[in-house]
Amino acid sequence: MNAASMTGMTALSVGKDIRLNSAAELEATLRHIGATRYHSLHPFHKLLHGGKLNKGQVQAWALNRYYYQSTIPIKDAVVISRFRDRATRLEWRHRIEDHDGDVGSEGGIERWLKLTEGLGLDTSYVESTEGILPATRFAVEAYVHYCREKSPLEAIASSLTELFAPNLHEERISGMLEHYDFVNPDIMSYFKRRLAQAPRDAGFALDYVKAHATTPEQRAQVCNALIFKTNVLWVQLDALQHAYVEGNIPPGAFVPQETKKAS
Amino acid sequence: MNAASMTGMTALSVGKDIRLNSAAELEATLRHIGATRYHSLHPFHKLLHGGKLNKGQVQAWALNRYYYQSTIPIKDAVVISRFRDRATRLEWRHRIEDHDGDVGSEGGIERWLKLTEGLGLDTSYVESTEGILPATRFAVEAYVHYCREKSPLEAIASSLTELFAPNLHEERISGMLEHYDFVNPDIMSYFKRRLAQAPRDAGFALDYVKAHATTPEQRAQVCNALIFKTNVLWVQLDALQHAYVEGNIPPGAFVPQETKKAS
Repeated sequence: MNAASMTGMTALSVGKDIRLNSAAELEATLRHIGATRYHSLHPFHKLLHGGKLNKGQVQAWALNRYYYQSTIPIKDAVVISRFRDRATRLEWRHRIEDHDGDVGSEGGIERWLKLTEGLGLDTSYVESTEGILPATRFAVEAYVHYCREKSPLEAIASSLTELFAPNLHEERISGMLEHYDFVNPDIMSYFKRRLAQAPRDAGFALDYVKAHATTPEQRAQVCNALIFKTNVLWVQLDALQHAYVEGNIPPGAFVPQETKKAS
Repeated sequence: MNAASMTGMTALSVGKDIRLNSAAELEATLRHIGATRYHSLHPFHKLLHGGKLNKGQVQAWALNRYYYQSTIPIKDAVVISRFRDRATRLEWRHRIEDHDGDVGSEGGIERWLKLTEGLGLDTSYVESTEGILPATRFAVEAYVHYCREKSPLEAIASSLTELFAPNLHEERISGMLEHYDFVNPDIMSYFKRRLAQAPRDAGFALDYVKAHATTPEQRAQVCNALIFKTNVLWVQLDALQHAYVEGNIPPGAFVPQETKKAS
């Protein structure tokens, strides 16, 4: 038996022995979850940022991550649809704009396609999503379903991984520019933009859950929503590592042709 | 670019160049998908049936697979809910009974718990599902969402992996009894029962899709539903292999204590 995972945090939840009697205890627990479960800790990211992947492996990462990026505005529309409260809808709406852009101005999805195009992937193939790993699809779709089916509080809480994104993006920008000669500042524009967007969004969501989770049970729901979301991110990297580092590409998924090493 | 997966079958679909002008061509394509994508081909199954796993790894498989098994009657209730047609509901209803049993008679879920108990896992821990891999949860829940959101035809078609289950179960029963001294016929009763149930169910579903998919487009939807379902099964084994064979157990998931080798 697995006694260690029956007390304390499991793969699914924060556990029963956690103290969540105040907003401060909630925030401390959320930061603990980030420090122990955010995908900055995943071995695949260490390979990616440390220049240990070849071009085909970086392509596989960008191709799969496109599905996540392009699903975020759909997820955010679902979040908005959960609120009768106009002020919350107004606050959340700019997230769709951040990703979709506007007529004549690019958004995050177009910036991501600059990355995949800069890496040599055909944009229509990327947009088709036909070659992504099934695990990517299941994890990303789980995020949309979560925001539709759980409480509005949990839908907002599941965005809280953005608290931990800026450090990861800074490490990614410098690491990838340093190590890969097929990466240049222009194709990394997505991450530079998110350095400003993510803290604003995360700040709102953190204030929201601290104000609206008023019982220990609700605070536990908020923590479990963040654990859920760290799983959504972790599963995507596990699948990339299994397929493209350990060499177990599942049937029909993208097969890299470019195995050029980092410079 | 990945030309090979842009023509023909991809990770997501059967491709545009397939001929699906008749029920016979549909059945031939379904059998081809089974022969190339069913999880009987997965390396983890070869390890499981060949006696190459230790007891903890077999526990991890049974623990995770419990989540799939125990979700099947929920999935089947969703399928039933898609049909106004009473005859189809009647036909499908016995699937829930097969898994849930009845007052005083066991069903497939109880037989699965005999397996996990026989393997030394605590039943309340198994039923809590707190220690399963997040990828297992996402894949299994994708199956339920698929049956809710796609057409009723696709919901039925996604069950067609049962066409290929009996051979796998026969191989599993003989392989596991031969190789593992912690496995006995009593705890394998789930699979013996499915040897009779699966062919009846698969026969109905195959006749149904052959009769109700009347255009090439509908036949392609049926094929894509089967591909989707093979992905649901494949992702679960990829995740088990990555976590418990290659040693990358994600945060909070079950950690085996028993590393006894096969006898």
